[in-house]
Amino acid sequence: MYKADIKVVDCTVRDGGLMNKWQFDDKFVKGVYNACVEAGVDYMEIGYISSEKAFNRNEVGPWKFCADSDLRRIMGNNDTNLKISAMADIGRIDFDDIPPASDSLIDMMRVACYAHQTDKAIELAHHCMDKGYETTINLMAVSKVNERDLDEALSDIAQSRVPVFYLVDSFGSMYCETTEHLLKKYKAALPDKEIGIHAHNNMQLAMSNTITALMGGVTYLDATLLGMGRGAGNCPIEILTAFLKNPKYRLLPLLKAIQEEVLPWQQKIDWGYHVPYLVTGALNEHPRSAMAWMDSERKDDFVGFMKEMHDYE
Amino acid sequence: MYKADIKVVDCTVRDGGLMNKWQFDDKFVKGVYNACVEAGVDYMEIGYISSEKAFNRNEVGPWKFCADSDLRRIMGNNDTNLKISAMADIGRIDFDDIPPASDSLIDMMRVACYAHQTDKAIELAHHCMDKGYETTINLMAVSKVNERDLDEALSDIAQSRVPVFYLVDSFGSMYCETTEHLLKKYKAALPDKEIGIHAHNNMQLAMSNTITALMGGVTYLDATLLGMGRGAGNCPIEILTAFLKNPKYRLLPLLKAIQEEVLPWQQKIDWGYHVPYLVTGALNEHPRSAMAWMDSERKDDFVGFMKEMHDYE
Repeated sequence: MYKADIKVVDCTVRDGGLMNKWQFDDKFVKGVYNACVEAGVDYMEIGYISSEKAFNRNEVGPWKFCADSDLRRIMGNNDTNLKISAMADIGRIDFDDIPPASDSLIDMMRVACYAHQTDKAIELAHHCMDKGYETTINLMAVSKVNERDLDEALSDIAQSRVPVFYLVDSFGSMYCETTEHLLKKYKAALPDKEIGIHAHNNMQLAMSNTITALMGGVTYLDATLLGMGRGAGNCPIEILTAFLKNPKYRLLPLLKAIQEEVLPWQQKIDWGYHVPYLVTGALNEHPRSAMAWMDSERKDDFVGFMKEMHDYE
Repeated sequence: MYKADIKVVDCTVRDGGLMNKWQFDDKFVKGVYNACVEAGVDYMEIGYISSEKAFNRNEVGPWKFCADSDLRRIMGNNDTNLKISAMADIGRIDFDDIPPASDSLIDMMRVACYAHQTDKAIELAHHCMDKGYETTINLMAVSKVNERDLDEALSDIAQSRVPVFYLVDSFGSMYCETTEHLLKKYKAALPDKEIGIHAHNNMQLAMSNTITALMGGVTYLDATLLGMGRGAGNCPIEILTAFLKNPKYRLLPLLKAIQEEVLPWQQKIDWGYHVPYLVTGALNEHPRSAMAWMDSERKDDFVGFMKEMHDYE
């Protein structure tokens, strides 16, 4: 399964932080960072880049902001081959708050948007490119976008300078066929761009959808340690690495970080496959209601959740 | 995804029992049975059929034997549409201990064998057919069988009267491509037989391999409640049912049995995706060493396990 041009993007801190408001201590973040460096992972997405006025530091941890001082505390000047990525949400970051890439430890800015925000996403992405960053646009919740709106978004992306576009299964509702269908559409509309995949595991298909996308020509593969991420979590980077059998990646440092840093968190927060996440995934709904249910005293009442979500006999 | 001829086979008690020596109380087994009946599942594999002298009842629970009296305690005369299945291991059952099907609540006997036991499996399966049972042969550990031996086994199966043959991923080491390759081979060698799939989840691919097999023409689909089964477990029947969207199946009774009967067991035994099972799956090894590791005090030392399994730098 040797593919020369693939890039593995670890999203453990960024996507996992959606489950604990990025309240990771430095030991955790350093553990993930060191594992990525030693394992030969290509990118580590360490968090979101947000303006300080968009969120309160008393409520969310430092990786909601990715301030330069926080980054340097973890990685010094990052004199390694690992590139650092941050995600930007439309409306949560002012252009003026983004430093020139030459002054930043961040190598890649990934702009997350919904279909109706595509123009704003392109504007922000172009701004980041002009400041010297690698850039992607990650179109979220595509499973809810109707075909005409999607075609229009793809047409706008095609005309942009942004070189990488992501297929994002935000709700974990995509089957192999869905992945193949959308990827074919993306490639046809964006023949000059690279495509990435970001999968969620609501139906235990994150790993297989990632393989399907890889076989279909995707070159950016998102994954996280032990699948840590919002709701049902992501494609587990250790399974992906074992599958790739690519000499540039090493499994052992990832297992070390899982057992030392990630496993303790699994006692505290309920990411991964759980029936409420299956229900929202199968219904093509945002996982927020399942996450709220998993946080409640009724978390194990799957029948109650199913009945609440669905007019079920 | 409507397919008229598919049969869903619940293996919760039989495969899950590999994790607790079939020490389920009657409430559990009745809960699974009632769920299968109400959900419209086609078969429930309730255990192994073994001779009483092959195992000690002080060590293993009743579902290692499937005695008629135990079956009737759970299901009376089973006046339902649910068919009952039992698995037979070569050498663990005497022909004389198998009652005529007309005297038994068991509808289907599935004969499990390794490649070198194919002739014995056919002999036992023919014996069961002559006694009036539906019958399958389940060739285990096919990922370890070399091509010549597999071709010979398939040739023997082709000449038998046994109508159903199973593709079994015992080690959870099969990718989508492996599944497609083997299924194509099985179908070419056995054009007149139906094929089944039994997947394990070591690389979180049990569900996707089951879909792949279904798309490729497999008609018998094994699955278990919450994936309960040996090691990393099986294809979760609730995910499969949600996927099939077939009007003959109902999800809610399955969720009820999961929350009432299966979830409590998850506190006690470690089936499901865990890193040691990934390691054996990726290395195409029997999960027994991972199961032993998971039962030890070092269960969370994934690096130690990886090093022990593999001459890893």
